[in-house]
Amino acid sequence: MTTIREKKKVPEFGLTYKKAENFSEWYQQLVIKSELLEYYDIKGCFIMRPWSYFIWSVVKESFTRDITKMGVDECYFPLLVTKDALEKEANHIENFAPELAWITKCGENDIEPVAIRPTSEAVMYPYFKKWLFSHRDLPLKLNQWCNVLRWEVKSTLPFIRGREFLWQEGHTAYYEKEGAEQEVLQILDLYEKIYTDLLAIPVIKGKKTENEKFGGAEYTTTVEAFIPINGKAVQAATSHFLGQNFSKMYDVKIVDKCNNEEHVYQNSWGLTTRCIGIAVMIHSDDIGLVLPPRVSKVQVVIVPCGSMNSDVVGYIERIKKEMEEKGIRVLLDDRKNVLAGFKFNHWELKGVPLRMEIGMNDYRSSEVVMVTRMNGNKRKISSVDIGESVLSELNKIHDQMYEKAKAEQMKRIRRASSWEDFKCELSYNNMIMIPFCGRIECEETIKKETTVFTDGTVDQQGAKSLCVPFENNERTDMQCLKCGEMCDKYTLFGRSY
Amino acid sequence: MTTIREKKKVPEFGLTYKKAENFSEWYQQLVIKSELLEYYDIKGCFIMRPWSYFIWSVVKESFTRDITKMGVDECYFPLLVTKDALEKEANHIENFAPELAWITKCGENDIEPVAIRPTSEAVMYPYFKKWLFSHRDLPLKLNQWCNVLRWEVKSTLPFIRGREFLWQEGHTAYYEKEGAEQEVLQILDLYEKIYTDLLAIPVIKGKKTENEKFGGAEYTTTVEAFIPINGKAVQAATSHFLGQNFSKMYDVKIVDKCNNEEHVYQNSWGLTTRCIGIAVMIHSDDIGLVLPPRVSKVQVVIVPCGSMNSDVVGYIERIKKEMEEKGIRVLLDDRKNVLAGFKFNHWELKGVPLRMEIGMNDYRSSEVVMVTRMNGNKRKISSVDIGESVLSELNKIHDQMYEKAKAEQMKRIRRASSWEDFKCELSYNNMIMIPFCGRIECEETIKKETTVFTDGTVDQQGAKSLCVPFENNERTDMQCLKCGEMCDKYTLFGRSY
Repeated sequence: MTTIREKKKVPEFGLTYKKAENFSEWYQQLVIKSELLEYYDIKGCFIMRPWSYFIWSVVKESFTRDITKMGVDECYFPLLVTKDALEKEANHIENFAPELAWITKCGENDIEPVAIRPTSEAVMYPYFKKWLFSHRDLPLKLNQWCNVLRWEVKSTLPFIRGREFLWQEGHTAYYEKEGAEQEVLQILDLYEKIYTDLLAIPVIKGKKTENEKFGGAEYTTTVEAFIPINGKAVQAATSHFLGQNFSKMYDVKIVDKCNNEEHVYQNSWGLTTRCIGIAVMIHSDDIGLVLPPRVSKVQVVIVPCGSMNSDVVGYIERIKKEMEEKGIRVLLDDRKNVLAGFKFNHWELKGVPLRMEIGMNDYRSSEVVMVTRMNGNKRKISSVDIGESVLSELNKIHDQMYEKAKAEQMKRIRRASSWEDFKCELSYNNMIMIPFCGRIECEETIKKETTVFTDGTVDQQGAKSLCVPFENNERTDMQCLKCGEMCDKYTLFGRSY
Repeated sequence: MTTIREKKKVPEFGLTYKKAENFSEWYQQLVIKSELLEYYDIKGCFIMRPWSYFIWSVVKESFTRDITKMGVDECYFPLLVTKDALEKEANHIENFAPELAWITKCGENDIEPVAIRPTSEAVMYPYFKKWLFSHRDLPLKLNQWCNVLRWEVKSTLPFIRGREFLWQEGHTAYYEKEGAEQEVLQILDLYEKIYTDLLAIPVIKGKKTENEKFGGAEYTTTVEAFIPINGKAVQAATSHFLGQNFSKMYDVKIVDKCNNEEHVYQNSWGLTTRCIGIAVMIHSDDIGLVLPPRVSKVQVVIVPCGSMNSDVVGYIERIKKEMEEKGIRVLLDDRKNVLAGFKFNHWELKGVPLRMEIGMNDYRSSEVVMVTRMNGNKRKISSVDIGESVLSELNKIHDQMYEKAKAEQMKRIRRASSWEDFKCELSYNNMIMIPFCGRIECEETIKKETTVFTDGTVDQQGAKSLCVPFENNERTDMQCLKCGEMCDKYTLFGRSY
């Protein structure tokens, strides 16, 4: 007789790749086996299963709460955009044109082609023009949570680079330049908060160079994260000051106090489901996921161990209830058809922050066994005030995960004073702070000279500028490491997703 | 000198159409002028502005909370679907094929066409096959909030029929037929609850006829709402029992306790942003919107009246704060550039349930003037325990709005015992309960014979079956009103969106 697994070709349990040995395969295997995600039969499209969608829900709720306090309103603009609207801002369309997906046929009929939004500047701003009359109508602050489509030609990767992805996009308009620029940084702080306070990830805040800024923006600010294992940085979220670039093209103007017409100042800012991929890459290990406690759908899994009687079952139920009353997300894994050891492996693979093992002896001593996913730490704790103990334990785990990632990131930010140093640090998978002129040509040279070829094909993309960090960035008179031109800021470079 | 309004062509304030005289123009003017929605430059696509999106947010939050308790998990599947996946269920694709939008080009390159999801059965079920092995993996309960696209050929109408719309779609799989069928009705109850408890709208629960059921479903249950002013019914949400129809086509099967392979039983169920349009059509009047209090972004607007001093301003602030502490959504309209009368008109047009006028005299007498939007009722109330008073007032308004709509709906459900009666009641814009055989041919005949032509073109679509209501539906031996065949149920007919 064949077993169920044989009959249905159930995939092997557990990871067969190691993070340090084969990061790429490890990651792709991990996101599937932990049930975060499933590959879809259209390349670059992925299914977000409940285990990952929950993380996104927590991020959504938290960020929406924060921007609501700032007076941002939620709305929804259409998925489709006309060619005419797209072509109004030349720099903008130039960036997105190669990735636009066009609908040309509906049912059996050919239609005038319409594109799927790659972002919504061109969708929204014609209506800003329609709605805004007076300086009193400002500021206008809108946000939407939606899907966008960018037909990527680069290789796609779960969460990190997909053709379709979910994000929020904020679009605001101001009468005063100062108000707009202030908001750009407020939002950047909120993005930082999502990474530090929810995902336990340190980020570097800064400004993008000319070469890396958003098409059509005056400037782009960014939070950059770092994946220690392969030394790649990753743009974690961006907040753009658009100045009057778009308002001039889309003719968005208002009448000011003196009855003069003025173009408005605009911002746009976005955070995507990429943040989930970043968290997975940074925290997880060879056993499986390690989820930051505040975003984990299950924070504590209870596994009953050994023989049970009604007293022990009652004890378990009471402990579960006490934790739930504190708002802790608890799952009791009381499956009868698998052994405790199988359950341990299952929930370790899925990255649940805390496991609680409860058996007859624990009941008798009014204790529980607690095992921390991030470090395997195992100890007995009293069941008195279990809700409070676990709450504080979850916060401690969060802090430890953050500190660990922070220490690693700090270690990997180097300074180089020569081009040889730069290349050496890069070869050790570090990020490098260098005096840099900021010119596009110079950046392209750096990128070109650090591209690694194997047998004539690109093996490693060259280093890019990640940002001009806001912190620890002395303004001394310096010379660009590459071209020797005078400059007054360090720029952070590295390989990057 | 030209004024701001002339310069920017600010549209006229207030409604110029009357609900009873020109319902269609009234509705379309209302949704724009109240800032619920904006027309978009692609036909059938609409912009949901914050005023309407807020309603959707409340519905989302409430329904998500309810289904989470039922064990339904949130997830996200891709926007795109291949031709292969779509064509697996023949009845299903037949219904949707004429409305499918196809992407055929990306950037400059032609691609193998992919469609935008009109609904996600064909997107999801191939993965149900992949994920489900054993009866222990069931039930699987998934839901997603997303956009879908149906290239409607019928005339589109804000909220009611759009090419793109937002909805939730739940998709579940069960081992036991009974469990699945039970869920179909549980969900229908939750849909009813959204209408009655949030939107103050009565609905009629029932089962769709063969002719009107979802393509591929075993049967479809529905909640039907009614727009008294034009006598049109509108499908408000549907919950389908798919039986094994899809699981057989998509090969979704599990191994049961006895190691036999069985196809799963499936449901799908959906609620769209149409619910907003229904609420607007039912409750609003010639002055503007009348929003149900529980979904209104602003529940109470405070308008300071007459001369102010710091005492009165402090009084207003205190009252505002007291209400906010009770969770009431309050807006203080302290604009200096417009008169109180303008503010009254503005917030009446936008349908805010309660207006509070506060001036010097009110401060002196520790009172406020309260005006109810739904009936214009104006009175003074004490400012003592103002939070509690307003909370109870908002609930009262909700109940009154519901009762009013319910009474009207009850009055408009008629019974007909002859074909002549049926046509007569229909001509009075009523819904009609008739003994009906349920056959597709008979339904088509009724539709055809009640279609109204003017100058050779269709002026009014014929009557459709709305549902076989669950309540007040005696099972006596009867004859179908149209064909005379024996039947044991009444079916509700009417004109419909």
